[in-house]
Amino acid sequence: MSSQFGKLFRIATFGESHGGGVGVVVEGCPPRLALDVGDIQRDLDRRRPGQSHLTTPRQEADAVEILSGLFEGVTLGTPIGMLVRNKDARPEAYASMKDVFRPSHADFTTQAKYGVRNWQGGGRASARETVGRVAAGAIARKLLATAGIEVVGWVQRVQEISASVEVGSVHLEDVEGHVTRCPDPAAASAMEEAIDRARRDGDSLGGVVACVARGVPAGLGEPVFEKLEAALAGAMLSLPAAKGFEIGSGFDGTKLRGSEHNDPFIPGEDGTTRAPTNRSGGVQGGISNGETIEIRVAFKPTATIRRAQQTVDSDGNAVTLEAQGRHDPCVLPRAVPMVEAMVCLVLVDHWLRQRSVDVLPALGDD
Amino acid sequence: MSSQFGKLFRIATFGESHGGGVGVVVEGCPPRLALDVGDIQRDLDRRRPGQSHLTTPRQEADAVEILSGLFEGVTLGTPIGMLVRNKDARPEAYASMKDVFRPSHADFTTQAKYGVRNWQGGGRASARETVGRVAAGAIARKLLATAGIEVVGWVQRVQEISASVEVGSVHLEDVEGHVTRCPDPAAASAMEEAIDRARRDGDSLGGVVACVARGVPAGLGEPVFEKLEAALAGAMLSLPAAKGFEIGSGFDGTKLRGSEHNDPFIPGEDGTTRAPTNRSGGVQGGISNGETIEIRVAFKPTATIRRAQQTVDSDGNAVTLEAQGRHDPCVLPRAVPMVEAMVCLVLVDHWLRQRSVDVLPALGDD
Amino acid sequence: MSSQFGKLFRIATFGESHGGGVGVVVEGCPPRLALDVGDIQRDLDRRRPGQSHLTTPRQEADAVEILSGLFEGVTLGTPIGMLVRNKDARPEAYASMKDVFRPSHADFTTQAKYGVRNWQGGGRASARETVGRVAAGAIARKLLATAGIEVVGWVQRVQEISASVEVGSVHLEDVEGHVTRCPDPAAASAMEEAIDRARRDGDSLGGVVACVARGVPAGLGEPVFEKLEAALAGAMLSLPAAKGFEIGSGFDGTKLRGSEHNDPFIPGEDGTTRAPTNRSGGVQGGISNGETIEIRVAFKPTATIRRAQQTVDSDGNAVTLEAQGRHDPCVLPRAVPMVEAMVCLVLVDHWLRQRSVDVLPALGDD
Amino acid sequence: MSSQFGKLFRIATFGESHGGGVGVVVEGCPPRLALDVGDIQRDLDRRRPGQSHLTTPRQEADAVEILSGLFEGVTLGTPIGMLVRNKDARPEAYASMKDVFRPSHADFTTQAKYGVRNWQGGGRASARETVGRVAAGAIARKLLATAGIEVVGWVQRVQEISASVEVGSVHLEDVEGHVTRCPDPAAASAMEEAIDRARRDGDSLGGVVACVARGVPAGLGEPVFEKLEAALAGAMLSLPAAKGFEIGSGFDGTKLRGSEHNDPFIPGEDGTTRAPTNRSGGVQGGISNGETIEIRVAFKPTATIRRAQQTVDSDGNAVTLEAQGRHDPCVLPRAVPMVEAMVCLVLVDHWLRQRSVDVLPALGDD
Repeated sequence: MSSQFGKLFRIATFGESHGGGVGVVVEGCPPRLALDVGDIQRDLDRRRPGQSHLTTPRQEADAVEILSGLFEGVTLGTPIGMLVRNKDARPEAYASMKDVFRPSHADFTTQAKYGVRNWQGGGRASARETVGRVAAGAIARKLLATAGIEVVGWVQRVQEISASVEVGSVHLEDVEGHVTRCPDPAAASAMEEAIDRARRDGDSLGGVVACVARGVPAGLGEPVFEKLEAALAGAMLSLPAAKGFEIGSGFDGTKLRGSEHNDPFIPGEDGTTRAPTNRSGGVQGGISNGETIEIRVAFKPTATIRRAQQTVDSDGNAVTLEAQGRHDPCVLPRAVPMVEAMVCLVLVDHWLRQRSVDVLPALGDD
Repeated sequence: MSSQFGKLFRIATFGESHGGGVGVVVEGCPPRLALDVGDIQRDLDRRRPGQSHLTTPRQEADAVEILSGLFEGVTLGTPIGMLVRNKDARPEAYASMKDVFRPSHADFTTQAKYGVRNWQGGGRASARETVGRVAAGAIARKLLATAGIEVVGWVQRVQEISASVEVGSVHLEDVEGHVTRCPDPAAASAMEEAIDRARRDGDSLGGVVACVARGVPAGLGEPVFEKLEAALAGAMLSLPAAKGFEIGSGFDGTKLRGSEHNDPFIPGEDGTTRAPTNRSGGVQGGISNGETIEIRVAFKPTATIRRAQQTVDSDGNAVTLEAQGRHDPCVLPRAVPMVEAMVCLVLVDHWLRQRSVDVLPALGDD
Repeated sequence: MSSQFGKLFRIATFGESHGGGVGVVVEGCPPRLALDVGDIQRDLDRRRPGQSHLTTPRQEADAVEILSGLFEGVTLGTPIGMLVRNKDARPEAYASMKDVFRPSHADFTTQAKYGVRNWQGGGRASARETVGRVAAGAIARKLLATAGIEVVGWVQRVQEISASVEVGSVHLEDVEGHVTRCPDPAAASAMEEAIDRARRDGDSLGGVVACVARGVPAGLGEPVFEKLEAALAGAMLSLPAAKGFEIGSGFDGTKLRGSEHNDPFIPGEDGTTRAPTNRSGGVQGGISNGETIEIRVAFKPTATIRRAQQTVDSDGNAVTLEAQGRHDPCVLPRAVPMVEAMVCLVLVDHWLRQRSVDVLPALGDD
Repeated sequence: MSSQFGKLFRIATFGESHGGGVGVVVEGCPPRLALDVGDIQRDLDRRRPGQSHLTTPRQEADAVEILSGLFEGVTLGTPIGMLVRNKDARPEAYASMKDVFRPSHADFTTQAKYGVRNWQGGGRASARETVGRVAAGAIARKLLATAGIEVVGWVQRVQEISASVEVGSVHLEDVEGHVTRCPDPAAASAMEEAIDRARRDGDSLGGVVACVARGVPAGLGEPVFEKLEAALAGAMLSLPAAKGFEIGSGFDGTKLRGSEHNDPFIPGEDGTTRAPTNRSGGVQGGISNGETIEIRVAFKPTATIRRAQQTVDSDGNAVTLEAQGRHDPCVLPRAVPMVEAMVCLVLVDHWLRQRSVDVLPALGDD
């Protein structure tokens, strides 16, 4: 079940980093959504390797083929199969790692779980697995747009370098204006320099991606196990290299008293109820309150580095590893479309679910 | 689906804070597990209100009745129904809040989602909902013990007061030795004083609960959407008042370089492979690596406080609320058994799932 | 997962024939449905033992308690917990069967699966388990009524005695007018006599229950694995003693040629498209077509009989069993509300699902 | 969710009859299963169109490509993606049916459900959708073989022509020995002649497929909603053109008395318990009893015929349809591998599930 996500808007991904290709089957997308391959390619291009000097030099155009579910420019309501072929796989580069477990990578745990692994790359643990998520997320994004919901992510921090941004005013073009996907130009330059330095050192950096969802109506989510923040946390920690999640005030908010932390309600326009201080991050008791949803995700420094490391081989002998292969010195810029995709997938699922909740007339409307 | 959790060890909870009672149906517990009501009551007693001067004065013995699934002291493999009656509900205390949305509580969002709510308490958003989780978690805990897996949580921080603990040496008796459930005596006293002060001020405090799982074998978890850290993050953020989650090095680890952050593998005893620096927190690529699983959860200060607050009523008018009802000035001590329960539920589910993975002979064993 | 049913309108049942009681948690019922305990008791009374001289003399009032999910006469959208206590259990009557496997009952297979069983009755294999289904089905029925959907079942055949009925004109009052639940008075009398004779002989009879759903709009169901007929077949074969299922023309229809079997479409009233010959049974390609849904379910003769039978004990010795306990000589009359309940549960789930399909504007409606 | 099947061995199919292709993602196949493309192609060849003069002349080699999940001849435990391209689609043949609903086909209901459809063929309602099932079923079959479980289906009846077979002695080679897939040579010849005659008449025939599973150990299945017979019934009715299902004695068994119908238990070899009269069809109370599982499935005559038929167009006008396109005059021979595939998928799922049930030591084994 590990490769399936969602209840109503449901995806099943497949594919290893080295093999025939990677892809996804999307089920539960409502019929009659206008969709073309460009809608999907746009987000895949933001995810693909080789898009800038900050990413792995692996060259993959990641051109997607839509196999089913579309007809004359609209969705049919049937499963949408999508496939991206692997092109620039170089399994021979991994030959030296066939019997060696790379530290803090998934080689050892994959072997422990399955008793076999495709050592020609990261297998399912490779970031290449996220191709299917991003392709599916692009469809979710298009569906959410019909309801006025917009999802935007950006690089908020690399190592100790933080962006100074007004959360409310970050838009896609600001994010895409710099290879780091940081909308604060000064921080972006500093991040770029730091990442380049890490690459030259054969080392890697981590940081934090922020993401907001605007236009989410009040009422999405669930009160218990599938609270909206629970669904978002699970989705984010399912991304490669993610180590932490916060919503709204997060860890820092735990240092405030209740009287400082609570979000007062005020009357809004057109009879709405608003809570603009939004320390809740747009969700209260698991259900959206109509304010902007704000989350942050911690990504560790990339596990694969060129520097020599101590490890063991599959026979249990201590060995020194000097890794080869092509990798990102910092996953953050490419993590932005992955985070957005997962936020879109969570929201679209809950948006559809609410259709089966809000069924009967309002009380007093008989 | 919000009230169901788990794939193979599966629970469905029910019940509002005010009504006939709260309970849970546990399905998928293997047959032949020795179990009695005391195993469950023990954890419920750690969760129940009124257990110390730091918690709400609501008096609930929370005595559990097992309705099905047990016979002659062992589980039957059939659903285990459990029920805890509500005793000390005082709906009249909520009458003044019938038409008023308490700030940062779920009143407004519940109304937005369902168009109706039981205003006589917090409904499903009440921490009383966690009775079912803790009862189910106690069964999971007993099952995990048969595999040598132990789960221990504690209060790591209240507001700015942090415990100084050696993660490896915290045991249940250390935690239960103080009403705060902080195993560091000095910090525990300071926390107790701070919580008492907040109560006298009609205010509330937040903080961080830490939890470890020891004895988890390598190989549990999944590589993609149901990574072990994803399942844990989703489970934790489903708890009332949770705002953040970390595993291993978490947010702080993002400030290290890869060469500092990676956990070197070393040969362990009996041919095992170990990674004792454990910045990974016991999970690599979504799958346990045999080290101790370490997580932390941020809980915001309790939303219900006695201090006057600005809010709106259900007609959209601005009003001032001075809340009544009985509430914890700090949820952290009672959150410990809730966190443990959810960790147990996640682990037992993945432990059972691995049974359907490790099916065929090892390669080369023909 | 065996005790959970449904995707959006989802139930989890629990309880053995002998123990604290039987019950169900219903999740996903939309909020604001007017509901009271009488709506549920009405169907439970049609299912309960001891209702006539044709059923087991076990006396159970089967009075249901609603534990949660209701407030001021309407559903809250939260889980609805319901409990029926066991009253007239007589475990001592089963003592002689503790180590003996009753032929064609579930004693042997339960032991084979679980390695333990509650021998004081049929455990989960008892028809008593259907209390939870019927209680949940009563809620589904009330919800379907808001959409103009009506479900009626009846006894169509007992052994060789078939009812002669006009499918379109069978209504609840016709069915409830006779203890056999056969709406054809002549057949009903013959069935009653046959069942009585079987009882006096210490034997049992089987037969066929028919059920229709009227007012189902075109478009419910799914095209592949969850075809409406697949969901109905699975639901029916999950009932105790069910051995076969047909929809529309069923097995007999396989003897026609396509030109005889196909249902011509004709223009209906108000621009509708109709297929009144309805050999399809209201479903085409897994999706409802707006005609009446018609199914039939085969129930074998009750396995428990008083006549001496050859069997083996738990040590593998051949023994002769003369069964005690109180049982129905023919399950058909009490199976009618069970069949209806399962049909209601299937339809309400698909009705809710269609809400998440029919989301976007019709093509050409921009 | 319509295109997903299974809990632990889980498949997601995709693809329309006309479009890029059809395929399936198989998740939950245990690692280390020896598998090659020939294992899958073998069953696809039994399903493919054009294999004999009794089937549609549409020519599709249906060569399968395995996209992921295999490495060096064994499964990895990761999702297995498989793709079959559409080659011989002739959408222009369907142009005349663009606005006409074919009687007893899914055109009308698809339009009613989705408000759009790919009129260039049967879309998801086409038997072409079963390519994914058969490919996945071939993997399930290979996994079951490791446990000594064998699944064999055959054509038992075409219209009024029934095979006379000894259920216990039908093997794959007997079935594959004739284009009808009927193992009784005399009946097979009569069926062949009848099907040919129907084809010449522009008409179609229906019938019954039988299927057995041998070597299934006692204990597979579940006691309530996911009874083994319920899972099988749901799986069978999900096949195109299926209208009925029976297990064991089925509808005919309802005419016996309990004393005639019950299967006496007798001591078997090696301490086993046997019930060889097997009117139960290998399942009692939802759980396998170790005897051969025996089911039968009714398939209606193919809906698409060349004869003129009354129908309506999408504007609601009465029209006469003379269908074009290439279709089977009788689906039964090609339905055999489809039935087998679904039986394999059900059994493998329950076989894996039992791994998470049979976890703790037997009682008394401490």
